[in-house]
Amino acid sequence: MSDDQALGITESKEYNTGEWYAEVVQKAGLANYGPDGMSGFIITRPRGYALWEGIQNYLDGQFKATDVQNAYFPLFIPESYLEREKDIVEGFDPEVAWVTHGGNQELEERLAVRPTSESIIAPYMAQWVRSHRDLPLRVNQWCSVVRWEATDTKPFFRTKEFLWQEGHTAHETEEEAYEETMTRLGQYRSLYEDVLAMPVMRGKKPEHDKFPGADTTTTVEALMPDGKSVQAGTSHYLGTSFAAAFDLTYSDEDEEELPAHTTSWGLSWRSLGALIMTHSDDQGLVVPPTIAPEQVVIVPIYQEDTEEKVLDYAEDLREELAEAGVRVELDDRDERNPGFKFNEWELKGVPVRFEIGPHEVDDDEVTVVHRPDGEQAVESRSDVVDAVEDHFDEVYAKLYARAEENLTENVRDAEDRASILGTIGQHGGYVRAPWCGKEECETEIKETISAEIVMVPFEDDEERHHPDVADGCTCAICDDEATETAFFAKSY
Amino acid sequence: MSDDQALGITESKEYNTGEWYAEVVQKAGLANYGPDGMSGFIITRPRGYALWEGIQNYLDGQFKATDVQNAYFPLFIPESYLEREKDIVEGFDPEVAWVTHGGNQELEERLAVRPTSESIIAPYMAQWVRSHRDLPLRVNQWCSVVRWEATDTKPFFRTKEFLWQEGHTAHETEEEAYEETMTRLGQYRSLYEDVLAMPVMRGKKPEHDKFPGADTTTTVEALMPDGKSVQAGTSHYLGTSFAAAFDLTYSDEDEEELPAHTTSWGLSWRSLGALIMTHSDDQGLVVPPTIAPEQVVIVPIYQEDTEEKVLDYAEDLREELAEAGVRVELDDRDERNPGFKFNEWELKGVPVRFEIGPHEVDDDEVTVVHRPDGEQAVESRSDVVDAVEDHFDEVYAKLYARAEENLTENVRDAEDRASILGTIGQHGGYVRAPWCGKEECETEIKETISAEIVMVPFEDDEERHHPDVADGCTCAICDDEATETAFFAKSY
Ligand SMILES: [Zn+2]
Ligand SMILES: [Zn+2]
Repeated sequence: MSDDQALGITESKEYNTGEWYAEVVQKAGLANYGPDGMSGFIITRPRGYALWEGIQNYLDGQFKATDVQNAYFPLFIPESYLEREKDIVEGFDPEVAWVTHGGNQELEERLAVRPTSESIIAPYMAQWVRSHRDLPLRVNQWCSVVRWEATDTKPFFRTKEFLWQEGHTAHETEEEAYEETMTRLGQYRSLYEDVLAMPVMRGKKPEHDKFPGADTTTTVEALMPDGKSVQAGTSHYLGTSFAAAFDLTYSDEDEEELPAHTTSWGLSWRSLGALIMTHSDDQGLVVPPTIAPEQVVIVPIYQEDTEEKVLDYAEDLREELAEAGVRVELDDRDERNPGFKFNEWELKGVPVRFEIGPHEVDDDEVTVVHRPDGEQAVESRSDVVDAVEDHFDEVYAKLYARAEENLTENVRDAEDRASILGTIGQHGGYVRAPWCGKEECETEIKETISAEIVMVPFEDDEERHHPDVADGCTCAICDDEATETAFFAKSY
Repeated sequence: MSDDQALGITESKEYNTGEWYAEVVQKAGLANYGPDGMSGFIITRPRGYALWEGIQNYLDGQFKATDVQNAYFPLFIPESYLEREKDIVEGFDPEVAWVTHGGNQELEERLAVRPTSESIIAPYMAQWVRSHRDLPLRVNQWCSVVRWEATDTKPFFRTKEFLWQEGHTAHETEEEAYEETMTRLGQYRSLYEDVLAMPVMRGKKPEHDKFPGADTTTTVEALMPDGKSVQAGTSHYLGTSFAAAFDLTYSDEDEEELPAHTTSWGLSWRSLGALIMTHSDDQGLVVPPTIAPEQVVIVPIYQEDTEEKVLDYAEDLREELAEAGVRVELDDRDERNPGFKFNEWELKGVPVRFEIGPHEVDDDEVTVVHRPDGEQAVESRSDVVDAVEDHFDEVYAKLYARAEENLTENVRDAEDRASILGTIGQHGGYVRAPWCGKEECETEIKETISAEIVMVPFEDDEERHHPDVADGCTCAICDDEATETAFFAKSY
């Protein structure tokens, strides 16, 4: 165990969220900062990467079960290809890393390290699609992308290089493409709600904040404990504009040449940042058993005369759990005392601890401790392997309930400009307000308090709407008619 | 189906191997060439990427079962970090892609797109290791690397960007590190022999051809049908030189500070190139069922009056196979005739075809056809799901036997310079010769016929040695004593 891991968390989640987060990431062994000359880059350590693999495995399984195929496109994109996106995206000015030399030769055309890949994926999809029989076409890529933004580094939230997946699909009709958009958004929601124990809200980005060139940008938003919203995954219905720009057309049954309807959707390791931020506490990392690299740690407690029987009992239990498919670690290090071990595994985020001392051995029992709240239970040795899944479910439910409570408590209504500003200023979280749909009304709020409209609920998501909107009220900022419900929040 | 896939292979594997290979890769839908301005790069299409995922899944499982953890290090490496490797590696002149600008700013120090990552991984491993308790440390990374070599592109064999894994480990003792080196080599061999149906030979690279700075470089070599050897995976015991250069030290039980013994090992998508090259034929791609994206294709054969009963029977069978975990595709496209479908699925490399016509339905049977040789069998409908694994095994065995025969027939002995040159000139393949161990003797051969010593068998691998070496014969090229057996071959 290296020194940095042995020391506990010193910052407070409540009072010093940013510093606390950075400390958890480092001391739980999730990531290190990049070397000199590489600010903005991080090293993802095995414990951090294992969490990302958990996210990947779940989503990749969902994607494959719904007819998505993985592919791999080049790391570099010629400048002229990126330029082509200017036809679609006004004012496109890519903040990218530029490769100008290969070996000792200057390149004729400089190459961008991909900031996103549609400008190279779309032309190939265009080659692959000839007829309506080639549709739908669904391609996904797991890769790293680079965006040269000069901001402070926050591991997994803000880094110049980040890991993500980007999915790109082409369809015959708008309905199909829109359904695809919603399918992927639903899979992102399922990742958060069914695997990461985080309730999220689904909605659309306002017209003026859509992905450039998109017809509709949908988002899942997660509320962080500091009251800011994280855009936790986005799915875009792109209409036919990208297809037209990249000649992604197909011939229909009557041999007519038509542009395809396309979608794209992406989720990055920001999901990992949101996971860490949501559940962890002043003792360190907290993650649900669904994704924890170790679900159970067994800590034996013994004196010299009880060592053998305790360790035998513990090892026997470890084997049985491992055979049952539980990710289990027996911490039988001799040089560390149980208290040290408790702290260390709490720091590292193992959700369930089994304590085994001479009493447990004598009584054929196991003491079970839940990571998030220290709740203890005693299980009989013969039942404990069966019971462990129930404990996982309980821990999951506790984490989910806590995050849900945070979300529910922090959606507040406002009907005028002053109360939008006052409520966000005082509480953070989301403020729900009737809105006319004009960007100027958002700008007013943004300039005063740097909160923005992070989402607008879907039309059919009635419980998310501000209750007055249906009754024909006016916009909370101007006097125009309110046509939508805006969720204002500060965001990451 | 796009036009390029519908056309069959026109080149000959035997007479025009290079062009044939390129044609198989493109027409089987495995890869496309990069766009203008990006020569040397390829687009890995879903069918190609699925094969790479198969390789990844197998190796990743093996690695994890033997205590390797995945991590992710930055895509870029500062020039000064690469320079540090010069201490270890004389004449190190990296042919890399250089990032010189981020957005509109010129960087203070230019960044290399990683050509390999030891120069950034080792310093972090040095940070993570304090005491002997932190050892062994095993880290692996799946990523892409870029090497700016100006050679002709050959998909998966020679590309400027390629996908690979690089493993890096640190240990207390030479013995442990050497064992690690051999464990990883054994896993590579297992990938080839147990998953890809390719026999390989294990051995060492000659002293003068080791990985720069390594103590021992081990390799698995695969013989291609054109008589050239492919270095199909390498595993290095690095001694303590890398540890010393990067301060990767640990304190032992007596608090003494010692350099760790390190290893590194890597396998790239060249394995995929070797797989395609080995088994495929003039009809297209051939891969074993172990790794095929679709293991079985069902082709229904019907006229208008038998359509319904044939399709019902076929769909029923498809469901049953899928439930049994078989990767199966039912090709029920109405607009294509069976002959077209046979050709297309042969081109795409599906190893087992089920043909179902009215006769099969009436007799409760299925006609089973093996991809590599067209062998047919008739199975009763009730047995076929159980029997399918036997067919997979048979197909695997056929592919393996054919590759093994090619290998066995193409290891020839030579005892003098003339017969080394003559034998390689006439037959290609491996020529096994007694060797003194001096580079000059290899140089003579290399300059005349561009064959080199691709490996030297391990000491205990007695059957691989040239029979005369044990008896104290002289080197086949000079008059010095032969101390080793050299395998000469042309190589990729
Ligand atoms: Zn308004
Ligand atoms: Zn010699």
